[in-house]
Amino acid sequence: MPIRTPLCDLLGIELPVLLAPMARVSGGTLAAAVSRAGGLGLIGGGYGDADWLIREFDAADGARIGVGFITWSLARQPRLLDLALDRAPAVLMLSFGDFQPFLPNIRNIQTKLIVQVQTLDQAREAVDAGVDAIVAQGTEAGGHGGTRATLPFVPAVVDIAKEIPVIAAGGIADGRGLAAALALGASGVLCGTGFFASDESLASNNAKQTAVSGSGDDTERSSVFDMARGLDWPPDWNNRAMRNSFTRRWSEDIDGLARNLAEEQARFDAAWAADDTDIAAVIVGEAADLIRLREPAQTTLYRMISQAEDRLQRIGRLVEPITED
Amino acid sequence: MPIRTPLCDLLGIELPVLLAPMARVSGGTLAAAVSRAGGLGLIGGGYGDADWLIREFDAADGARIGVGFITWSLARQPRLLDLALDRAPAVLMLSFGDFQPFLPNIRNIQTKLIVQVQTLDQAREAVDAGVDAIVAQGTEAGGHGGTRATLPFVPAVVDIAKEIPVIAAGGIADGRGLAAALALGASGVLCGTGFFASDESLASNNAKQTAVSGSGDDTERSSVFDMARGLDWPPDWNNRAMRNSFTRRWSEDIDGLARNLAEEQARFDAAWAADDTDIAAVIVGEAADLIRLREPAQTTLYRMISQAEDRLQRIGRLVEPITED
Repeated sequence: MPIRTPLCDLLGIELPVLLAPMARVSGGTLAAAVSRAGGLGLIGGGYGDADWLIREFDAADGARIGVGFITWSLARQPRLLDLALDRAPAVLMLSFGDFQPFLPNIRNIQTKLIVQVQTLDQAREAVDAGVDAIVAQGTEAGGHGGTRATLPFVPAVVDIAKEIPVIAAGGIADGRGLAAALALGASGVLCGTGFFASDESLASNNAKQTAVSGSGDDTERSSVFDMARGLDWPPDWNNRAMRNSFTRRWSEDIDGLARNLAEEQARFDAAWAADDTDIAAVIVGEAADLIRLREPAQTTLYRMISQAEDRLQRIGRLVEPITED
Repeated sequence: MPIRTPLCDLLGIELPVLLAPMARVSGGTLAAAVSRAGGLGLIGGGYGDADWLIREFDAADGARIGVGFITWSLARQPRLLDLALDRAPAVLMLSFGDFQPFLPNIRNIQTKLIVQVQTLDQAREAVDAGVDAIVAQGTEAGGHGGTRATLPFVPAVVDIAKEIPVIAAGGIADGRGLAAALALGASGVLCGTGFFASDESLASNNAKQTAVSGSGDDTERSSVFDMARGLDWPPDWNNRAMRNSFTRRWSEDIDGLARNLAEEQARFDAAWAADDTDIAAVIVGEAADLIRLREPAQTTLYRMISQAEDRLQRIGRLVEPITED
């Protein structure tokens, strides 16, 4: 397991792979599995359910993990931050919104602060604030995100971040993506889709099955599922998920969904309860093409590292002097 | 100049870097410059101007180059294909539309056929047709494109293409992007934005200046400039360009643009003639962040290779056994 970067030293981990704090998917068991395998698992703080958060911290069973929050949502329930910091997480990751008001609470403890960005202005703000690391997230990511794509966005953020480690997110679910992220100058990766179908993931059975049999071509960004879930996301970000009959009905007719909201929310809630993924949301990104197995998170992580090693060695050989041809 | 891949052998080139056939930008002089530096330049067949095509083939002045066509446009003027094949280009690249009707004309000569794809179904079709190489183009590319992002799309296409070389396109303008593409399993890259501001590019003076001072954050996909230019593109693809006052006025109100089309086209044409890039289109992609200099194409290409070598060596060292810490 020799892939080691400055991020590993910063976070005290063996492998430069972080579990994305997927709401309702990245619970304590999954986070602990990723951490115990040598990466760092982040539980998904989600939309402010304190009981859930306590339960999932407990479920990590003492493993060294981190936690991620949706910043605009956290602003409505700031006590969740205290609750999380009481657990002394290895990392606090803030995404989607103004993280500045939370800085005074965070900076006096040993928890590392990671801020996720989707634009270069956000990256500059994070650098100026002195965050410990920056996640540069591309639009191919599952769940909420912006418009920039990972491959050109990461090096542009690296140029801004200078000595602050940059973590690439969006579209990375195997060793090729990890190797590419390192080539771009990232110091590690944050993976959601890659662990969505893990045995330890809290995603439903049908959601996992839909994810591993689905394609990145069948994902799209929209606000449909946010409306269906009653989440008033700011317009700067929307949600990538698998297309299904619900998105096909409404993604081109958001106004129509708004007019039929009560009825459609009831239909969505019933589908969610019944694990009917033709209506309920399966929130994965374009990396769906790269996941095909339901397996323990450790197996996924080890294969990712092994494949990245293989890629790094292969492409390293491309630059050796050519002597025979 | 030691970065050598199977694509180099297939195309008979030294460096695995192709110039994208940008319409009205990639002329014979730029294509020749990229080819003479060791890559392969493709002139942009564009929208069917036979005189332009003849002139630019002549401008290449005997350099070994390729040519790229917009397939749906070529279908309306198929004689352009004969005109191009008469010049025995090293490569014919077809993008955006059904390439199958052209296959009989192409396959009996020495010109290699490269098909550019934006979905996995298109990749499967290209593989089944036995093309010589596939360009997997991500949405971050400048100009026309689809919705998939380069980083997760390339490895998914590689898995489909098997032994057929895959060329990564979209967001790649420096050595980090080239190294990442190779890590993803690509055998080379196709670069447009990276050469847009080259001395040999046919882009206007102000367009080049806008590109090198612009950011990927300030690009967006829309159909605004296609309407303004009277180009009836199929709905499967739209155009990424720098935002300016024209896109800010119309990109959220395409119907309004359609209602005012004659007037707005006149305004656009006048701006184009006057090189006013606050109205005229500057068609570059998210890699705009990575280009900062106006310089000869050879200088850009050599720096890209040198930076890629450096990246490949650095990340190769990440997998060496750690003995000291």
